[in-house]
Amino acid sequence: MKPARPRPRSLPLLIGRKPVLEAIGQGTAIEKIFLLRTASGEEINSIKKLARERNIPISQVPAEKLDGMTRAQHQGVIAWTSLLQYVELQDAISMVVDKGEVPLFVLLDGVTDVRNVGAIARSAWCCGAQGLILPTSSSASLTEEAVKTSAGALHKIMLCRIPSVPQAMDVLRLNGIQVLGTEMRGSIPIYEADITIPSCIVMGAEDTGISKDVLKRADQLIRIPMAQQFDSLNVSVATGMILYEAMRQRLMSE
Amino acid sequence: MKPARPRPRSLPLLIGRKPVLEAIGQGTAIEKIFLLRTASGEEINSIKKLARERNIPISQVPAEKLDGMTRAQHQGVIAWTSLLQYVELQDAISMVVDKGEVPLFVLLDGVTDVRNVGAIARSAWCCGAQGLILPTSSSASLTEEAVKTSAGALHKIMLCRIPSVPQAMDVLRLNGIQVLGTEMRGSIPIYEADITIPSCIVMGAEDTGISKDVLKRADQLIRIPMAQQFDSLNVSVATGMILYEAMRQRLMSE
Repeated sequence: MKPARPRPRSLPLLIGRKPVLEAIGQGTAIEKIFLLRTASGEEINSIKKLARERNIPISQVPAEKLDGMTRAQHQGVIAWTSLLQYVELQDAISMVVDKGEVPLFVLLDGVTDVRNVGAIARSAWCCGAQGLILPTSSSASLTEEAVKTSAGALHKIMLCRIPSVPQAMDVLRLNGIQVLGTEMRGSIPIYEADITIPSCIVMGAEDTGISKDVLKRADQLIRIPMAQQFDSLNVSVATGMILYEAMRQRLMSE
Repeated sequence: MKPARPRPRSLPLLIGRKPVLEAIGQGTAIEKIFLLRTASGEEINSIKKLARERNIPISQVPAEKLDGMTRAQHQGVIAWTSLLQYVELQDAISMVVDKGEVPLFVLLDGVTDVRNVGAIARSAWCCGAQGLILPTSSSASLTEEAVKTSAGALHKIMLCRIPSVPQAMDVLRLNGIQVLGTEMRGSIPIYEADITIPSCIVMGAEDTGISKDVLKRADQLIRIPMAQQFDSLNVSVATGMILYEAMRQRLMSE
């Protein structure tokens, strides 16, 4: 049995087919939609279609899950509204370029611990990264705990949800942004990679690392050098080190 | 009211005056001693004296605290045995020098969160630091949670308990080790400080920073540069960045 995930009480609920559909239609920021596995019908199809277009994660769940979230008539649909605003990846890149800044993004490939995501957002903002990229399929829901751990940085940095990591890598590359996959066995120590050019750093989960798609498609595989033969670093600390290295290189090349 | 601290169940107890006194005398590693505030007598005096000599933290507590830890006759004395071994700071420095290594130590001045201490030990070990220095007065008890967060690094790195930070700084300086105090307003960006020479990095608590003693006595005050006007970094991430910078400089100067 999986351990019960803490329910993010802070996220207000939208309950029922019409309210959820209307909210998506109006552009309300939505963190996640819970759909009854067996739900069907026109409204359900519209919800699925719009959610896909807007990169809103959908979780297909049994009736007990929905019943546990509310006593109201949910009609097989409940959504968490978001504490945060999301931006399209292409829009985020354009905004950075328009400001005359050199893009620095962080893509989290399977980092699901909310505290790690919060800590990474904090480091990213401090080190000058403009955006955090989160796949809809494997991301932490950004709860109040994540916002708190980020010391508010999640409200400042641009957040981009993407349907898949390979698709995001294509968008990045089309915009001239190099994709640096971080891996313990990466061939290039981070201080030998040039991070002064437009870059996106991809971090994987602590246990499994970055996915095969990233390994295959990354422009370079970088690593943090280690003074000891030892287990890998905590993912938020490792991300902090790479972001620091990016900032150091950029400050020194000014 | 202070929030209740989680009881480190994993630390075995020594109960009663004789058992505690004998254990200290035999050199058993002890994490902390709890003494009844009103306790007195020859054995109590011996316990206090030996604890001071061995840098074992003593906590003076009311009877309820001790009664809550055991149902046995505690005679006003309970000790937590330690999961870890501690080394005298001077011995630790001598061992590093004897091995022909360049000392790199981390001194935690008021970092009391066990998870932060664990994460810092992990980064320190990965980046080639040989020792972690903890003041007896203001340190986290190194529970199983700390060991787990460190991914075992707390078993590998040398741990030095010290009675006071200024005293430790004197020992470090006598051994030719520069003391680098980390401060948001420190004058030197870390990449401009020379950390290739024997160094000890002092990190303070997230809220209050390093103490005045350190500010006054440090050889240099260093800072992590920031791309944004923003709240400081998480202390374990900040320590990771500085340790990475030390490792980078040392690798590049080889």
